[in-house]
Amino acid sequence: MASQGSQSPLQRRYQAVRQQTMALSGPLSDEDCCIQSMPDASPVKWHLAHTTWFFETFVLERVEPAFRPHHPAFRVLFNSYYNGVGEKHPRAQRGMLTRPSLAEVRAYRRDVDQRMLAWLGSADFDPTGADAAPTAAISAGMAALVELGLQHEQQHQELMLTDVKHMLSLNPLQPAYADQTPNSKAGIDDAAETGDSPPLNWCRFDAGLVEIGHDGSGFCFDNELPRHRQFVEGFALASRLVTNGEFLAFVEAGGYQNPALWLSDGWDWVCAQQLQQPLYWRRSGPDWQEFTLHGLQPLALQRPAHHLSLFEAEAYARWVGARLPTEAEWERAAQSAGAHDGGDQPGGAQLIQLFGSAWQWTSSSYAAYPGFTVSGDTIGEYNGKFMINQYVLRGSSCATPEGHARPSYRNFFPASARWQFSGIRLAKTI
Amino acid sequence: MASQGSQSPLQRRYQAVRQQTMALSGPLSDEDCCIQSMPDASPVKWHLAHTTWFFETFVLERVEPAFRPHHPAFRVLFNSYYNGVGEKHPRAQRGMLTRPSLAEVRAYRRDVDQRMLAWLGSADFDPTGADAAPTAAISAGMAALVELGLQHEQQHQELMLTDVKHMLSLNPLQPAYADQTPNSKAGIDDAAETGDSPPLNWCRFDAGLVEIGHDGSGFCFDNELPRHRQFVEGFALASRLVTNGEFLAFVEAGGYQNPALWLSDGWDWVCAQQLQQPLYWRRSGPDWQEFTLHGLQPLALQRPAHHLSLFEAEAYARWVGARLPTEAEWERAAQSAGAHDGGDQPGGAQLIQLFGSAWQWTSSSYAAYPGFTVSGDTIGEYNGKFMINQYVLRGSSCATPEGHARPSYRNFFPASARWQFSGIRLAKTI
Amino acid sequence: MASQGSQSPLQRRYQAVRQQTMALSGPLSDEDCCIQSMPDASPVKWHLAHTTWFFETFVLERVEPAFRPHHPAFRVLFNSYYNGVGEKHPRAQRGMLTRPSLAEVRAYRRDVDQRMLAWLGSADFDPTGADAAPTAAISAGMAALVELGLQHEQQHQELMLTDVKHMLSLNPLQPAYADQTPNSKAGIDDAAETGDSPPLNWCRFDAGLVEIGHDGSGFCFDNELPRHRQFVEGFALASRLVTNGEFLAFVEAGGYQNPALWLSDGWDWVCAQQLQQPLYWRRSGPDWQEFTLHGLQPLALQRPAHHLSLFEAEAYARWVGARLPTEAEWERAAQSAGAHDGGDQPGGAQLIQLFGSAWQWTSSSYAAYPGFTVSGDTIGEYNGKFMINQYVLRGSSCATPEGHARPSYRNFFPASARWQFSGIRLAKTI
Amino acid sequence: MASQGSQSPLQRRYQAVRQQTMALSGPLSDEDCCIQSMPDASPVKWHLAHTTWFFETFVLERVEPAFRPHHPAFRVLFNSYYNGVGEKHPRAQRGMLTRPSLAEVRAYRRDVDQRMLAWLGSADFDPTGADAAPTAAISAGMAALVELGLQHEQQHQELMLTDVKHMLSLNPLQPAYADQTPNSKAGIDDAAETGDSPPLNWCRFDAGLVEIGHDGSGFCFDNELPRHRQFVEGFALASRLVTNGEFLAFVEAGGYQNPALWLSDGWDWVCAQQLQQPLYWRRSGPDWQEFTLHGLQPLALQRPAHHLSLFEAEAYARWVGARLPTEAEWERAAQSAGAHDGGDQPGGAQLIQLFGSAWQWTSSSYAAYPGFTVSGDTIGEYNGKFMINQYVLRGSSCATPEGHARPSYRNFFPASARWQFSGIRLAKTI
Repeated sequence: MASQGSQSPLQRRYQAVRQQTMALSGPLSDEDCCIQSMPDASPVKWHLAHTTWFFETFVLERVEPAFRPHHPAFRVLFNSYYNGVGEKHPRAQRGMLTRPSLAEVRAYRRDVDQRMLAWLGSADFDPTGADAAPTAAISAGMAALVELGLQHEQQHQELMLTDVKHMLSLNPLQPAYADQTPNSKAGIDDAAETGDSPPLNWCRFDAGLVEIGHDGSGFCFDNELPRHRQFVEGFALASRLVTNGEFLAFVEAGGYQNPALWLSDGWDWVCAQQLQQPLYWRRSGPDWQEFTLHGLQPLALQRPAHHLSLFEAEAYARWVGARLPTEAEWERAAQSAGAHDGGDQPGGAQLIQLFGSAWQWTSSSYAAYPGFTVSGDTIGEYNGKFMINQYVLRGSSCATPEGHARPSYRNFFPASARWQFSGIRLAKTI
Repeated sequence: MASQGSQSPLQRRYQAVRQQTMALSGPLSDEDCCIQSMPDASPVKWHLAHTTWFFETFVLERVEPAFRPHHPAFRVLFNSYYNGVGEKHPRAQRGMLTRPSLAEVRAYRRDVDQRMLAWLGSADFDPTGADAAPTAAISAGMAALVELGLQHEQQHQELMLTDVKHMLSLNPLQPAYADQTPNSKAGIDDAAETGDSPPLNWCRFDAGLVEIGHDGSGFCFDNELPRHRQFVEGFALASRLVTNGEFLAFVEAGGYQNPALWLSDGWDWVCAQQLQQPLYWRRSGPDWQEFTLHGLQPLALQRPAHHLSLFEAEAYARWVGARLPTEAEWERAAQSAGAHDGGDQPGGAQLIQLFGSAWQWTSSSYAAYPGFTVSGDTIGEYNGKFMINQYVLRGSSCATPEGHARPSYRNFFPASARWQFSGIRLAKTI
Repeated sequence: MASQGSQSPLQRRYQAVRQQTMALSGPLSDEDCCIQSMPDASPVKWHLAHTTWFFETFVLERVEPAFRPHHPAFRVLFNSYYNGVGEKHPRAQRGMLTRPSLAEVRAYRRDVDQRMLAWLGSADFDPTGADAAPTAAISAGMAALVELGLQHEQQHQELMLTDVKHMLSLNPLQPAYADQTPNSKAGIDDAAETGDSPPLNWCRFDAGLVEIGHDGSGFCFDNELPRHRQFVEGFALASRLVTNGEFLAFVEAGGYQNPALWLSDGWDWVCAQQLQQPLYWRRSGPDWQEFTLHGLQPLALQRPAHHLSLFEAEAYARWVGARLPTEAEWERAAQSAGAHDGGDQPGGAQLIQLFGSAWQWTSSSYAAYPGFTVSGDTIGEYNGKFMINQYVLRGSSCATPEGHARPSYRNFFPASARWQFSGIRLAKTI
Repeated sequence: MASQGSQSPLQRRYQAVRQQTMALSGPLSDEDCCIQSMPDASPVKWHLAHTTWFFETFVLERVEPAFRPHHPAFRVLFNSYYNGVGEKHPRAQRGMLTRPSLAEVRAYRRDVDQRMLAWLGSADFDPTGADAAPTAAISAGMAALVELGLQHEQQHQELMLTDVKHMLSLNPLQPAYADQTPNSKAGIDDAAETGDSPPLNWCRFDAGLVEIGHDGSGFCFDNELPRHRQFVEGFALASRLVTNGEFLAFVEAGGYQNPALWLSDGWDWVCAQQLQQPLYWRRSGPDWQEFTLHGLQPLALQRPAHHLSLFEAEAYARWVGARLPTEAEWERAAQSAGAHDGGDQPGGAQLIQLFGSAWQWTSSSYAAYPGFTVSGDTIGEYNGKFMINQYVLRGSSCATPEGHARPSYRNFFPASARWQFSGIRLAKTI
């Protein structure tokens, strides 16, 4: 890549995000990167290629006058769900692709990076849109697409970790992803804080008309728009997440055996899969262990519980006489706390762990905001078509890239998903 | 049963609802009443027994000092989903019960009816709660339970018709449920109006804070409470439902072959089931027919389309550049129209077919209202545990018993359900 | 039907078989006759209609000059697997047919019976083929078809009992098919003998070239032909069937928990279905009961064990250090015993229970005999197309109609089938 | 490994077989070796480890006084189906094992090879059993186990090729396993002969008593024993295998659309999987291609058809008015031909392609020979437990290692299996 000295801010950001993706795959072998452990997960190699396909398809093909694809077959192989772009390889078959090799996918990344950086540094591209030339609007649109591609890649960075963790967990050797994490954070799989969790307090919020959705400064996904009004009744929110120790009490009290605690579909799910405990918990005689990216570890009772489905979160909440928050409640509290990705603010009520520990299930189904519109081009497939049978999670997790979270961010998964870094923040009606 | 002359209003209402259930099963043979056509449906005989089980379990067992069940095994066989009451027969096995016979189930109904009417007419029961005796509160609670049982039975009256229709539709003979409908309505499977549908208009509603939920007069289910405030942005609602003719245009334009029109899960569903058209439509050369409770009929192009899933409703709405309403939008419009079960009001905007034609899918997932609480007793299982992966339908259908609908009523089914009398009312953001 | 006095032997036989079918359905309600308890079973009503369809399709349509079907739709509804005859109703949907009603199916039987008897008594039909007219050969062929239809109906008589037993067994009420059996036999579900089983002896047979297959006298199915030579090594056969008491020892010794005793597919089947015991055995505290056509009964320890799959039979045999016989061994022994359907012969070695108790699993897959040919017409679908993944059972059961069994008879079912009256006769290599 | 000069014949043979396995994996990447393309297949890495596990478990553990496993977890991970040896890793999860890495598995092979060769060369081991020491019998038994392990490894050599071929065929890039085959044979995926197939003749064999089973010279598997007598009626066998061109005529005549040609289960299978052609055939406009280990190639019309299921073989045979041979017929013909693995003999009737092209389906289910006994130790699980719902194939294929085939060899697969190199030799009754 070009030397950093001469680079524009967007070039530098492009390089940083792309390099972080490679860093995350660093501890993994070619074999580790090839396997798909379940239809919901994807191989790391596929993540590496698909995020590259995004830039090739939505940027390079539009801006390079003499565009030629790196490899014609990659157009199909690494399309995820964009029906508008053409054929796609069946999702459940992603793990069959031993070819192209990891080395070839890395070469694909290098080629696209080089072409992207060349274009980002060329005279054709003016992200500010400051000049009066007819290309200005185009440039602004393309700059937005580049940023969308980088945000998209950051989403896949987190998925690479959740998918690898799931794959490794199926191996009887229970291998570690890494001893040292390549992330700049203190530790993947760790809550930001390493000390004991403080006592749980309830932070009260009065009823009122609030504005929900992205406020317009900086990047957001289409599903965070438009900002709109919602009337939120009075409620209280737990000051921190539910800990492993607290969830263990639920397990040991027979929570997984009591149908009265579960939603009807949740109970069917528990019975069909004969579930007894969270996904990565392992009982070892009288003790409990947890499979982590660092291998099997003693269950850290003071840390926030991770890898819970909405069904489990909901049953736990019912067991303690509370409930899950709606996404509007969560966002309203996050606004009040002044909380943001950089860390919890002292003045911001007493809410901690809003970001950087575990995504927090809400009771809100993933739906369009009033006035939501799908963009006319292929990128419009991005979010709207998933607005069914999914539930919103708010905040961010220990695996979320820095700078990727904000109060209006809407993550979403089906109610049974539990391979994500997802946890519980309780709410109450007051 | 006792003569009507000496009966209390509750006795008369009890008799009327119970007799209507029997009237609906009148045209059916013992065999027709025994079959379960799919796991989501139940045999008519099971409906007849289960609604009776409700009164036996939640009323007679509590009020009869020398209570003895009509048949001990019926306690398990005809429990639907009340885990609190004990064991239940597996749902998918309901169609295996050739014994008890239909005659025995009818005898079960007669026995319980006799005991219910005796108790309702006895000195022990004072539904008004007017006297000062300690039994007054109990009586009021029991009267509410009786009413709940009757409303519950009315729900099953509609399900009997949808389930029978589905079962008959699987028979290559395409037999009619009945030539003459036993209902007091003009016709089951018919919209209330028999003339041509008027042109579609858009009724506009301004943004504002509205009250949603039951207003306290008369019966409601727990899921309609508490009444609460919601801020609803400005929107427009179609003045009438989508017709068969309009939906046929979607079919003929290749709507079922175009992934861009469907939610992601919806498209998977269309492909997996190789769907080409609505559930009961049959192509017959160049013509279209529809299977109805009166047998196979020419497709009535001017009538509201029925038996559509949320997936189909949503795809159609996208195709015409509209969307489905939220349940708050629907209820706000219904309030404004002064609409109620008795018929559409002239002054009530121009909205027609709010009730009595087809249930109207909304984009709202079925969730608890703010402050919703589950009652402490077993009846508390009634609604809350289904609040996941289901979507709300509003209004009522041609198969809904008279007096059973209201603006705050929340019906709910999974997005793929299409054996109900469910149709489309379009909405737009303004 | 016509009076018996003037009837030919074939008319009398036709009437007797057809009446026996109706007698078997006598104790059943319309509802009992309508249900299909699993895809492998069929409703009694379907059996009643399908056996009638056979005569209508393969006889009446060929011999009645002015043939008109009783009901056009029945041609499809009651076709079982004859692809050559045209469309057929999907097997797993047979339980959906509440219409035609049982009464209509009975009328169908009466109509076809009347027409069959009229034709059998007419001048057009000379079963002896004795005259020199060109119709003689045709008549002989048609007489064979009538006999095939009657034998086919007798097969369905046994299936009616096995299918009804399975259906009733799924009912938590565990209802009896009948108190008194309509059969002329001492008792359905009973072994012919009611006293204690004698001690088990081993009957030895020397190696030698034997003739296998039907010897030409009387009726046989195509799969019993041609008679051919097989060399059979020396072996010993158990003098009687394995009893409930003996099989109980296997159960109590942990037979269902020991993979070493099972075929690989058998062990997968045991694990997938979590099997612990034979199909109709019920543990009741320290005691064992068995569901029978007479309802729930104490397990009769001295009687032959019934309703075992080949997997179970094979595992039991391995447990006691024996094996199952091949079908050639079984037939060779039955020939030697002079055994036949009428009862076991005193001189016939010491073999008892060859017929009339339980079908006996062999280790032989169901395959064509050398020189087997499929007849050119549609009836040719009768047996050959099932010659894959099925195993042969020999003998007959307590539910087999009288006169329907013989030493060369080949019954066949998949290795996992256990709703038939199937048991175990052990063999040993010597 | 030790230098070849000083090696015993068994050491040399051990080395040769083990090296051939590694040679077969030579063209494959780490990723290629890790994937499991379907539950019936295994990853190449698993084959490499499992064959090594066999020697470690059944030889080294018994003969090394200070035996320690190479890695404790490998005992479970690489057990295939030996329940007697302890836990085993679930078959369908074999493709999840990115760890141990391919390099670690290669190290495992090297370690076990070193120890095996050391022991085979040590004074403790006298395979001739010639001395009078008490260890002689033990040594003979161990030598047999070593040979069994090598034969077992040769079976896996063929499976490695069939499994890799299947995996690569799922990749839209249709990659080649290799340009040059590492085998000593002219070509994998090629029939031995490269010229045109000669015309098909029918070789007649008279009825008679024949001896079937291994004759005692050299190695055989337990399922080839004991040699025994069978009476085989007269038959004729096709002189060569069915060619691609001949099978193409079946495809183009609508063979896959005609239920009359198929076994009942076969037709269900064709319909459920919507099959139109053999597994690796690809239609390309008017032309046909076949996916091979050398990538996509034009369909070679003169070569024997490969990768057919028993269902397809059986339907084809019916279409041409022939049938499949029984295994006794095949073996009798092979004996007569004097045919063996080294090539077809001139005098051996006119039968060609008995070995080295495609395994030949027979109509015989896989069953025990009369007098077959399972050995008492764990190895006894080897063959007997699979004797259900499988059918025998005879001969050998282009992927079978040299020296591994013989007239009495019994390969076996389910009727629907078609990823093996399996083809058709027709038979007729005379």
